[in-house]
Amino acid sequence: MTGKLIGVGTGPGDPDLLTLKAVRAIEGADVVAYFAKQGNASNARAIVADLLDGKVEEQLGYPVTTEIDRRHDDYKAATSAFYTEAAARIAAHLDAGRSVAVLSEGDPLFYGSYMHIHVRLAPLYTTEVIPGITAMSGCWSASGLPLVQGDDILSVLPGTLDEVDLRTRLEGTDGAVIMKVGRNLPKIRRALELAGRLDTAVYVERGTMANGLHMRLIDKADDVAPYFALVLVPGWSTRP
Amino acid sequence: MTGKLIGVGTGPGDPDLLTLKAVRAIEGADVVAYFAKQGNASNARAIVADLLDGKVEEQLGYPVTTEIDRRHDDYKAATSAFYTEAAARIAAHLDAGRSVAVLSEGDPLFYGSYMHIHVRLAPLYTTEVIPGITAMSGCWSASGLPLVQGDDILSVLPGTLDEVDLRTRLEGTDGAVIMKVGRNLPKIRRALELAGRLDTAVYVERGTMANGLHMRLIDKADDVAPYFALVLVPGWSTRP
Repeated sequence: MTGKLIGVGTGPGDPDLLTLKAVRAIEGADVVAYFAKQGNASNARAIVADLLDGKVEEQLGYPVTTEIDRRHDDYKAATSAFYTEAAARIAAHLDAGRSVAVLSEGDPLFYGSYMHIHVRLAPLYTTEVIPGITAMSGCWSASGLPLVQGDDILSVLPGTLDEVDLRTRLEGTDGAVIMKVGRNLPKIRRALELAGRLDTAVYVERGTMANGLHMRLIDKADDVAPYFALVLVPGWSTRP
Repeated sequence: MTGKLIGVGTGPGDPDLLTLKAVRAIEGADVVAYFAKQGNASNARAIVADLLDGKVEEQLGYPVTTEIDRRHDDYKAATSAFYTEAAARIAAHLDAGRSVAVLSEGDPLFYGSYMHIHVRLAPLYTTEVIPGITAMSGCWSASGLPLVQGDDILSVLPGTLDEVDLRTRLEGTDGAVIMKVGRNLPKIRRALELAGRLDTAVYVERGTMANGLHMRLIDKADDVAPYFALVLVPGWSTRP
């Protein structure tokens, strides 16, 4: 009998934001696998470190992350070969009857690396996906920022969009989450201003950590931001 | 000393999808409050029922839900008065030094009723918000449907949008979640078809329950759907 594949969302970082189901799945799995850049520690592993005592671990080490543009053919070729090899390593455990929990920061099927394993193995093995708290949800909760309500539209936008597209989308939505901020921040700021949304936008850095930074974007004096910072734009203009 | 207000996300329905932090917050609270339609049981309470033994409870009973159009002034007046009165009941506990956990299905600040309490009391009392697994995340996880990846745009859309708006937004997004399906389903179906997105759309009913229904929308023969059904449209066209 083959083992079960389990995609496990670990949430945004605080181990207390693991679900009961995720804890049980990790404790019950024969093997725990996780992604990390080669030579680096895995953030997802760090979240569940207390549950791994004596567990068989599989570290899946990305060959490249940001060194090559993700639209470049070399990036696609390198990552495709890597995901295929990673899936094969997990499949070997499953074929030997071992259950494998594949960790995913945040939620596995929402911008998660686990998706690459899922599309390759879910058609072949018994599979379960355990949702996790997303980074954006962890951030607006830590900020105490009501995001969307009622018939509001929410747009989740990458900061890599060009300025005109970003502005147009911000004009046409109620709430928004802008991801991948980093060096896109000056452009994001202009797009928000042109869309008339700058005054309510909130800048969040390390949002779910003890040293997290939550501030009105308009109060942020510089344009220095890490890649994983977020900008939150609240909707809900019709509150009674 | 006044008590602490805690907005607690209970997740989409399965008690195992509570976070460790939510469980501890409910167990540690002096009072647990929750919304429900007057005369009905609370779904959020049902999720955490095993944690409530001997706890002081406050049921906040909506005077109206769907009997009046939510854009009507009578609806706004009735709900506004209700939220103000509910906030006053919670404030009385806080003033007496009792901590209050206000339950919210899914995630508190993402379309949650708790938001109405938060905007009234968070400026006045020490407040913490504990995020929860959203219904949409529970649904795509149970469906095993990879939703968005990389630079994908996600749009969360109410099924109440008119057909042209819905079509335009579906044409301009990668992934989409359409909520409030119900009697909007025929319109949603037409908008998806015109946007060229019908073939990959997934219909989900009671998505995180044991008797949940997950099917390609194109395979659903009728247009009968509950209000809380979802339609999921996967993005991620560039998978390596």
